[in-house]
Amino acid sequence: MKPNGIITLLTDFGVTDGFVGVMKGVILSINPDARIVDISHQISSQDIEAGAFILDNSYHFFPPGTIHVAVVDPEVGSQRRILAVASDRCFFIAPDNQVLKYILNSDETLTVIEVLNRQFFLKRVSQTFHGRDIFAPVAAHLSLGVPIRNLGNVIQDYDRGSIDQPVVTEQKIVGKIIYIDKFGNLITNISEDLLSKSKISVTVGSSQIEHLSNSYADGEIDKPLAIIGSTGFLEIAIKNGNAQNQLSIKRGDIVELIYRK
Amino acid sequence: MKPNGIITLLTDFGVTDGFVGVMKGVILSINPDARIVDISHQISSQDIEAGAFILDNSYHFFPPGTIHVAVVDPEVGSQRRILAVASDRCFFIAPDNQVLKYILNSDETLTVIEVLNRQFFLKRVSQTFHGRDIFAPVAAHLSLGVPIRNLGNVIQDYDRGSIDQPVVTEQKIVGKIIYIDKFGNLITNISEDLLSKSKISVTVGSSQIEHLSNSYADGEIDKPLAIIGSTGFLEIAIKNGNAQNQLSIKRGDIVELIYRK
Amino acid sequence: MKPNGIITLLTDFGVTDGFVGVMKGVILSINPDARIVDISHQISSQDIEAGAFILDNSYHFFPPGTIHVAVVDPEVGSQRRILAVASDRCFFIAPDNQVLKYILNSDETLTVIEVLNRQFFLKRVSQTFHGRDIFAPVAAHLSLGVPIRNLGNVIQDYDRGSIDQPVVTEQKIVGKIIYIDKFGNLITNISEDLLSKSKISVTVGSSQIEHLSNSYADGEIDKPLAIIGSTGFLEIAIKNGNAQNQLSIKRGDIVELIYRK
Repeated sequence: MKPNGIITLLTDFGVTDGFVGVMKGVILSINPDARIVDISHQISSQDIEAGAFILDNSYHFFPPGTIHVAVVDPEVGSQRRILAVASDRCFFIAPDNQVLKYILNSDETLTVIEVLNRQFFLKRVSQTFHGRDIFAPVAAHLSLGVPIRNLGNVIQDYDRGSIDQPVVTEQKIVGKIIYIDKFGNLITNISEDLLSKSKISVTVGSSQIEHLSNSYADGEIDKPLAIIGSTGFLEIAIKNGNAQNQLSIKRGDIVELIYRK
Repeated sequence: MKPNGIITLLTDFGVTDGFVGVMKGVILSINPDARIVDISHQISSQDIEAGAFILDNSYHFFPPGTIHVAVVDPEVGSQRRILAVASDRCFFIAPDNQVLKYILNSDETLTVIEVLNRQFFLKRVSQTFHGRDIFAPVAAHLSLGVPIRNLGNVIQDYDRGSIDQPVVTEQKIVGKIIYIDKFGNLITNISEDLLSKSKISVTVGSSQIEHLSNSYADGEIDKPLAIIGSTGFLEIAIKNGNAQNQLSIKRGDIVELIYRK
Repeated sequence: MKPNGIITLLTDFGVTDGFVGVMKGVILSINPDARIVDISHQISSQDIEAGAFILDNSYHFFPPGTIHVAVVDPEVGSQRRILAVASDRCFFIAPDNQVLKYILNSDETLTVIEVLNRQFFLKRVSQTFHGRDIFAPVAAHLSLGVPIRNLGNVIQDYDRGSIDQPVVTEQKIVGKIIYIDKFGNLITNISEDLLSKSKISVTVGSSQIEHLSNSYADGEIDKPLAIIGSTGFLEIAIKNGNAQNQLSIKRGDIVELIYRK
């Protein structure tokens, strides 16, 4: 697979301090034809879990050969490793801290490299901003066609993490809220593939929902509704409202789906 | 008119959850040469009125052949229609919910299409994220030169909405605050074309302003001033301050302009 | 030096109201091949000092020939001047209000022009939005190769401002917090070049720190640490925390570095 010149950026850097602009300057200094796309820079500081989730929901929609850079990196400057990963379709550069866990646990064929070759870093590497000094220039060189194996050594013992799977029985599915989006919609880890029967009840916090809706607009104002969201997972929302606030739910909370007779 | 390869995006998606990045991935997968420009993704959730206003103040400044995509879409997944519009100068894709009201009420010659042709959608269309599954791919195909009429059927009964006009008499003009920007500046629907005389008083809330200023810097600290803003409409501001907060004004509040002798 | 087609934007416009999108539309209308990069649009309203700092930390990382546009401009519409500056490596366009102070006080060879030639402005110049009406079109024309001297007159009496330098003695260095980033890290004006000895104590507010750390992760949870940050200046941070909030420090506060025996 050849790089297509597109580099995506996902960080917890925010957009106030100029960190992301600087990364783009570094990339364009090395590959003036790179096309850079922001996925998100508003990951909560050091929220690796959210970064992993957003990246997983994004990368499938980019063309083959895209390079995805994910810098949620609380251990910057320590001995944590940096990974460059090639899948069948695209590339990833990220710290070895589970921010790539969905990709690393997928069934794609992966080449995983520990990034070590300082030839592809900025000359002067700071202790605190590897996004600028390592991630950006490595991505830029990769986008120019540098073979991924030139970046360092193939490794097997990277931190694969694990994916929190729901517990499925004949009668019910017990899952979790794994992400809450800006509309306050509660996204679960219960995939629509698991929904074998159509008559269901969903319980989350003190609320109960008796059927699946077909749109956010389908439902009564201020009542929670359940819907298969855009990621293919069960989601709890409130028409014209904010389910997170109105139901007082937080990430990690349990969601129970019971098959009704 | 031919598309120029520029696609602008205006949404209420925020920039945290990766929704906008995903739309860009979809566009670049279909048209790798598209140039994508963000207008705003910080429209308050489902605030169609604000989206309409910002779009109207933006699109005139883009080159001919630009495609403007506006996704403020509380009824996503319902039976609401999606419009593709060609004017003399540019294209629009948006829900049929008045977010295009300024364009639809302008005196430009318009072709309005109900977007129906699933050939230009993503293969799998979710119930909740038509920005990704319909708006983005339709815009990308349009940017490649697909004739707008191929997207669906010409319709006449789209929701044109209406523009809130001030009441103008010999003695005064009664208008409204129609938008408040991030500086707290209060933008009215009173166009400078309506200001036939130069001696005026402006009343907003409990404040009175006795003349038009020539710049935000022109005026006393903490005193409201009136000025013709960048959109050509009368605007209330406070030098080095925030008129919205300091005057306790909200969108929809009345502004009265009286001609003085 | 020839322009490279890259234009960076730094403003206090926020990303809600569409102001930045409009500037990009204006630029692309004049130079359809311009590549536009956002440095930051979240400078606090009218915070020239923060804009100057962020610009200074960013521009070095862009390729030669880049045009940097900085619009933090509280005096828009008044008689304040607009500067176009060419250094050995790049260009700047900004109000004459010290937002370029780091460049203007650097030892680069500069040509400083007062921008006056209305031929390069939009036809209609508003009183309140020179970002759209002057800065964007001037940058676009410059990126097309218009010689900088065509924009107006060479001047010498621009507002150079001054850089707040720490007081350095044999025993200690007394500096200041000059910027606080989104992680709450406190950036001082004490350059690593000034640190002639390795045994140091750092005092900020009521906290004392006894050595330099090598990474944010190096240190105890909830204890402040001192580190050479990515800008080459001494920085105070808290592992997994927010130094600004936890230490109650604000910009301008004193930082004392004492050499220990």
